Parts: sequence; structure tokens; C-alpha cells
Amino acid sequence: MRIYPPSVELAKDSGFCFGVRRAIKLAENAVENKGIIYSLGPLIHNRQEVERLEKKGIHVIHDLSQIESGTLIIRSHGVHPEILEKAKEKAIPIIDATCPLVKKVQELTAQLQKEGYEVIVAGERNHPEVMALPEVKVIEKAQEAEKLRVKKKIGILSQTTQTIENFSRIVEALVKKTPELKVFNTICGATVERQKSTRNLACRVDLMLVVGGHDSANTKRLMEICKIAGTETYHIETAQEIKSSWLKGKKRIGVTAGASTPNWIINNVMKKLPHY
Amino acid sequence: MRIYPPSVELAKDSGFCFGVRRAIKLAENAVENKGIIYSLGPLIHNRQEVERLEKKGIHVIHDLSQIESGTLIIRSHGVHPEILEKAKEKAIPIIDATCPLVKKVQELTAQLQKEGYEVIVAGERNHPEVMALPEVKVIEKAQEAEKLRVKKKIGILSQTTQTIENFSRIVEALVKKTPELKVFNTICGATVERQKSTRNLACRVDLMLVVGGHDSANTKRLMEICKIAGTETYHIETAQEIKSSWLKGKKRIGVTAGASTPNWIINNVMKKLPHY
Repeated sequence: MRIYPPSVELAKDSGFCFGVRRAIKLAENAVENKGIIYSLGPLIHNRQEVERLEKKGIHVIHDLSQIESGTLIIRSHGVHPEILEKAKEKAIPIIDATCPLVKKVQELTAQLQKEGYEVIVAGERNHPEVMALPEVKVIEKAQEAEKLRVKKKIGILSQTTQTIENFSRIVEALVKKTPELKVFNTICGATVERQKSTRNLACRVDLMLVVGGHDSANTKRLMEICKIAGTETYHIETAQEIKSSWLKGKKRIGVTAGASTPNWIINNVMKKLPHY
Repeated sequence: MRIYPPSVELAKDSGFCFGVRRAIKLAENAVENKGIIYSLGPLIHNRQEVERLEKKGIHVIHDLSQIESGTLIIRSHGVHPEILEKAKEKAIPIIDATCPLVKKVQELTAQLQKEGYEVIVAGERNHPEVMALPEVKVIEKAQEAEKLRVKKKIGILSQTTQTIENFSRIVEALVKKTPELKVFNTICGATVERQKSTRNLACRVDLMLVVGGHDSANTKRLMEICKIAGTETYHIETAQEIKSSWLKGKKRIGVTAGASTPNWIINNVMKKLPHY
């Protein structure tokens, strides 16, 4: 018996997380009350949502030298203390939309460094959240630990959007390198739930669509999870990217979305799928 | 071309470690100066050496209630603080032969508990070194972590004779359980070196003999290492246990010995091997 049309299911915990929702709300309120708002780098890792915000008056800049006035919003990933210092020197008003969980990572970094630990972050070298942390070493995969030179006391933190599997493997590798380690699992709870429900869904369907910005770290982790589950999976930013060939013969389609993917994009994807 | 007789090689770091040598020296000195010496449990995990010491006047007891006088020697594995307290109440003089590295584990346990960490020891539940640690949870293999209920802040220590592979895998499993971990790799350096040279030798020979007490934790770890290397391996306490069938057709024989194996036993084993 052939079932047609395919069933389409959206993962339970998908789309905007608390930190992203908060950053957008702060930016939208600010633009209403304070006029022109600048964000140093895109406010969140979603091109389409950033374009929507641009139209409202929230402009992306790439260097502080580009502005002399206006209000600066610190995006959800946070910013390096040196840049914050420069903005203060320029007397530019600041709205801090750093995700509170990312803030926690920044505070723990400072605390560990004060206690004499060399801080190692399990995360992506070029991700703004990681780049905002001063004087840390970054490790992306456990294999890199072998060549890493570390001090006797190391503190280990995770980028908030890591998978627990990668994080724990990195810790395992670092245990072999040094006698004293203080480890904080700073993966955010919403990320864990989103990964769990994505893993769960991916195991039950024969096609997964992961919706989110190509720069979005947590979206990329969702891709990895679906691939480990062995399910045919595609990463799309918008509904327009869906190819009908992907859907051919599929009985169950699963959809999940990163923490920076707005509902309006997820809705467009769902509407585009046949017979949803 | 057939090589005969087989070559026989003794692993570089085998036999008595610093802690065991120290404990025996303290016991032998004490018996000369103070008369009858009691050890609560065998002084080291080697039956033959304990028998030799027994003849010198170092007697093994199994409970403090067995003695009212004499001098008590605390063996290299240390003892639970409650027992130490009882001996003090009985006014029995004490010589502390606890290995300084085991002492360090005891101190770190107390320090971590004072800092509010629940202490978990990666080691053997029934080993005296582990049993001497008050109010700790013990985990032998990473698989046990799944069912373990732990608090939010855990401190992790290793029995001094663990393998780094088992210890790091246990840490990896515990990272998934709780957000804050303080880890001390308390595997002793001599153990690491002994394991390394055993691993190295096992990979180059076609028969390994591991010499040491059947109760000796570090000797059992050497067995595991040889088996992982895929080499035919036998655990013996004395030269008498060697079977000629093991040696048949072997070209290279390797010998290693635990930290509590005296030189005189190792020498007897070497002499028993053909054409050494």
C-alpha cells in the first residue's frame, strides 16, 4: 500500500529561542524610541530576518569606524570587550542584546582566568560568540587536542550551540593532556531540546529539511544530527530552495529550524510542502 | 629462518614503585626499632612479599579489635579516617606509610567536598585505596555513568592506578550528566610510565608475562593493556606458575611487573625463562 500525500511534521522545538526573540524585541523597541540603530555584524544569523529589520531602520555595520552617532546594539552573540571599550570612547549609546546564556559564558571565562585557569572553548573559531571571548584557546574537534599545548590548569567551556557529544569528546581528549580541569557545560537548554526533538524526528521520517541561515552555528549542528541519524537531509534558508525531486516518493517529511529562523520563514516552508 | 632460543625482554618500568618501596622501608625500620608491627590488611598487594615481611615481624591483622598494643602501620593504600580515629582512641602508635600520591587523592577529596562538590572516584569499588575515601561515589566503567544520580557540581578523581583511557572515558560520560565538573587526573606518574612501557613491549613480542599479586589493581591494568595490544598474555604471581606450553614456538617474550612486585620475584621469573 502506498501512502500519498506524504505526512509533514514540524519538530517540537524549532525556531526562535529566547535569546534571539529578546534581541529582536530590544532592537525593534529601540528603533521606535531612539531612531537609527546600528548592529555590529548581523543581529542574528538569518539573512532574511536581518533584511526585514534593515527596512525598519536597524542597520548592519562591520566596523565601529563606520559610525559617529546613532545607537549601537550588541547582538545576541555578544562582542569582544575591546570593541565595547571603543564604543564607550566614542560616546556611542549601547543597547546590550547579548543572550543571557552567552553572557554567562563571558562571565565564566573571566572568573576562570581570575582563578588562574587557561580557558579553552569547545566551539567554532570564527563564530562571533567565540570571537567575543578574550584570551581563550578554541578547539573545534577532539582530534585537535593532541597538538594543543595547554597549561597545567585548564578551564573548559562550550559555545552555547555545541552538541553535547562533541563537547564531551573534547573534554575526554583534554583530560589526557593536563592534571587539573574545571569544566562548565554551557550548552544552552533550548539548544539541547531542539537537538533532541530534531534527532527524534529525523529517526522517524525519510526526508528532513533544516531551515536556517547558512552562517547559523546551531542550524549546522541540526544538519549534523540529521546526517548521523542517516536521514536524507537538506539545509535551506527559504521555501524557494525546496526542490520537487527531493520530495518524490517520500512518505514522511520532517522539518526543523534553527534558533535564529523566524516563524514567517518556517510557515512559508510548511505551506510549500505538498498537502500539508 | 627460525630464531631459537627466544629473546626475553623485561619492560623498562616494572616492579616496585616509590610508594611501595617507601612503605616497606618504613615497616622494616619500624620492626627493628619498635618490635611488633601490625598492618591493617596486607602492606602491599603481593602475597609472597607479605609472607617475607611476616617472618620479620610485620603481622597482618584484619580488624583493629585484634590488637591492644604494638605499633600500627598504615599501608600504602591508606585507610578510612574513621579507622584512624579508632586507632587513636585505643592509643595505638601509628606509622603512616600511605603513598604520598594516595595522600594527595585524600586531600583533594576533602578539598572538593569543602568547596561543595560531590566527589566521584574513577576506580575499583573494593580497592582499599578507594574504600579509604569518605563519602564518595565510585564508578568503574563509563557505562555506569548513565544510571548514576549526581549533584550539579561534581569533582572527579582517579584511583592512582587507573588507565588514562578508562579515566577520560568516565569523565566524558559524566560531562553529559551535570553542568559543572572539577577534574583532577590523579593517576600516578610511575603508573603511566609502567603502562606505557608495557604497551610498547606488548606490541613487539608474541608472549607477555605479567608478574604481580592477583589482588593488585595496577597489575590487572597491565593485563588489560597487553590484551588490548592483542598479545597472548598470562598473569602470574611467581615463576612456578609458568607453563612450558606457553613458551612453545615463541620468538620474543616480554615480561612486566606491577608496582608491588619485588625484584626477587621478577628475577626468579627471568631465570626460569629459557636461555635468558
